Amino acid sequence: MSSNKMQQWFPWTEAPVIVNAPMAGAVSPELAAEVSKAGGLGFLACIADFSEGSHQVIKLDVDLIKIRQLLSSPSSSATTPAGHLRIGVGFLTCHPSIAHFAATALPIVKKHRPAAVWLFAPHERIRPQGEIVRLLKGLGTAGGEGEAPRVFVQVGNVAAAREAIADGADAVVCQGTDAGGHQFRRGMGVVPLLGETRRLVDDEEKGGHEGVCVLAAGGIADGKGVAAMMTLEADAVVLGTRVCYPPTFERINSKKKTKGPAYTLTCTQFTGRGDRIGEQGAACGRDCA
Amino acid sequence: MSSNKMQQWFPWTEAPVIVNAPMAGAVSPELAAEVSKAGGLGFLACIADFSEGSHQVIKLDVDLIKIRQLLSSPSSSATTPAGHLRIGVGFLTCHPSIAHFAATALPIVKKHRPAAVWLFAPHERIRPQGEIVRLLKGLGTAGGEGEAPRVFVQVGNVAAAREAIADGADAVVCQGTDAGGHQFRRGMGVVPLLGETRRLVDDEEKGGHEGVCVLAAGGIADGKGVAAMMTLEADAVVLGTRVCYPPTFERINSKKKTKGPAYTLTCTQFTGRGDRIGEQGAACGRDCA
Repeated sequence: MSSNKMQQWFPWTEAPVIVNAPMAGAVSPELAAEVSKAGGLGFLACIADFSEGSHQVIKLDVDLIKIRQLLSSPSSSATTPAGHLRIGVGFLTCHPSIAHFAATALPIVKKHRPAAVWLFAPHERIRPQGEIVRLLKGLGTAGGEGEAPRVFVQVGNVAAAREAIADGADAVVCQGTDAGGHQFRRGMGVVPLLGETRRLVDDEEKGGHEGVCVLAAGGIADGKGVAAMMTLEADAVVLGTRVCYPPTFERINSKKKTKGPAYTLTCTQFTGRGDRIGEQGAACGRDCA
Repeated sequence: MSSNKMQQWFPWTEAPVIVNAPMAGAVSPELAAEVSKAGGLGFLACIADFSEGSHQVIKLDVDLIKIRQLLSSPSSSATTPAGHLRIGVGFLTCHPSIAHFAATALPIVKKHRPAAVWLFAPHERIRPQGEIVRLLKGLGTAGGEGEAPRVFVQVGNVAAAREAIADGADAVVCQGTDAGGHQFRRGMGVVPLLGETRRLVDDEEKGGHEGVCVLAAGGIADGKGVAAMMTLEADAVVLGTRVCYPPTFERINSKKKTKGPAYTLTCTQFTGRGDRIGEQGAACGRDCA
């Protein structure tokens, strides 16, 4: 599969398709909108608290209203011909409140119709992502409003990629261990992760499974890196920390600005590994899995 | 710099230049010779014990005699026009006996004239690699026997790459964290490591420093991976675990053969990290740094 599949799903994008990571607490609506306006696939910051009255859910609703304004111009529409908003939203599924997803977050997706949804960090006991994919895909049929959003699942190893495909993901984001964001305890670099996942997906397709897109993420910071990932047959490439430098980056982070990502702090909140975080700490609560 | 520099140094090689990692206790003379005969740069297994009467040093002498036979054929010479044996040798510099390098290993290099020498894992207190490079380069002048061997230094982060260049290395091997071999405690994946080291070397060249080749290693297992590394401007690509599958691989390792490298064991001997090793344990003594 090539970038063409991504471009079919997201018809405003240009090849090679560039996606910004939905970095929690870091991506502003302005930044996400700029990515989509530039021919990429912009994602809003992930949210993690799905409880009733959650400020994060309320903010997502507000941000999507703002996105619609930001993406509307005399020369282009905020939506695709199929009626999707030209943006993605992200959900960290590690918080126990994920049990309220159908009641709190799903109506926001149904209302605004983002073109893509990104899932990551499933709660270890609840394992909610299969059910969330089912709910999201249900929007495309029961609601009678056309296609459901495309669901991206972020993985850090091949076993998780296999599980994501079984859960019904449309796209698997292969995040290697050089990523600035939170990671899997058992991770691997993007080169073998992408290569092995590509092989897995190709084998699934031979077995009759509908095509899944494979994205590369982690340590990719320039055009050469993007070209290398396309050489490894990525369908699209994710930039994370690298997009945090523009003034549209929401969080003031002087260390990142002056010394680069190698100087950011680390925490072990998600995975037990020392993952890189902004100097103001992780974006969502310490009670995550 | 392109593969051309590597091909100038090692005129029998073909682009893209493929190098086998000098895996201690794993690479047989037959395997190393096959790599060079196929147009790559073959390396014998690293040795680590440089004490007087060391069996490893004696074996290196014997292996190089064997290599000369293996590389000689009616259609090709074992040596280059400049008189170098078409092979590399490797030295793990972590053992305290490295203090005897000049007395025990250097005469072997002088006698057999391998085209390349690979250094890795410097003893933290002795920090011997700068002196070893000086001794090896001295073979090219004081001995009056033509060019010295090209010296490769394996690194796992950009600070080590900078140190290797200051030590006088001809080539820096950027081994990312997906490698099967022992690694740096503070490592990074091959994509950013290669990219940042390439930039460092290019900056040094602008400053008048003679060109240093940059090699990619770690998690590269097929042609797509090689192509991706060339896209990232590697001068050559190292295959390690991947070359352990042929029958010429010295160590019987049924897990590797049946389940692939993800199933190899790990140890923390060199770096404190859980590095992958063969199921029969690490190749050199437990008293390494």
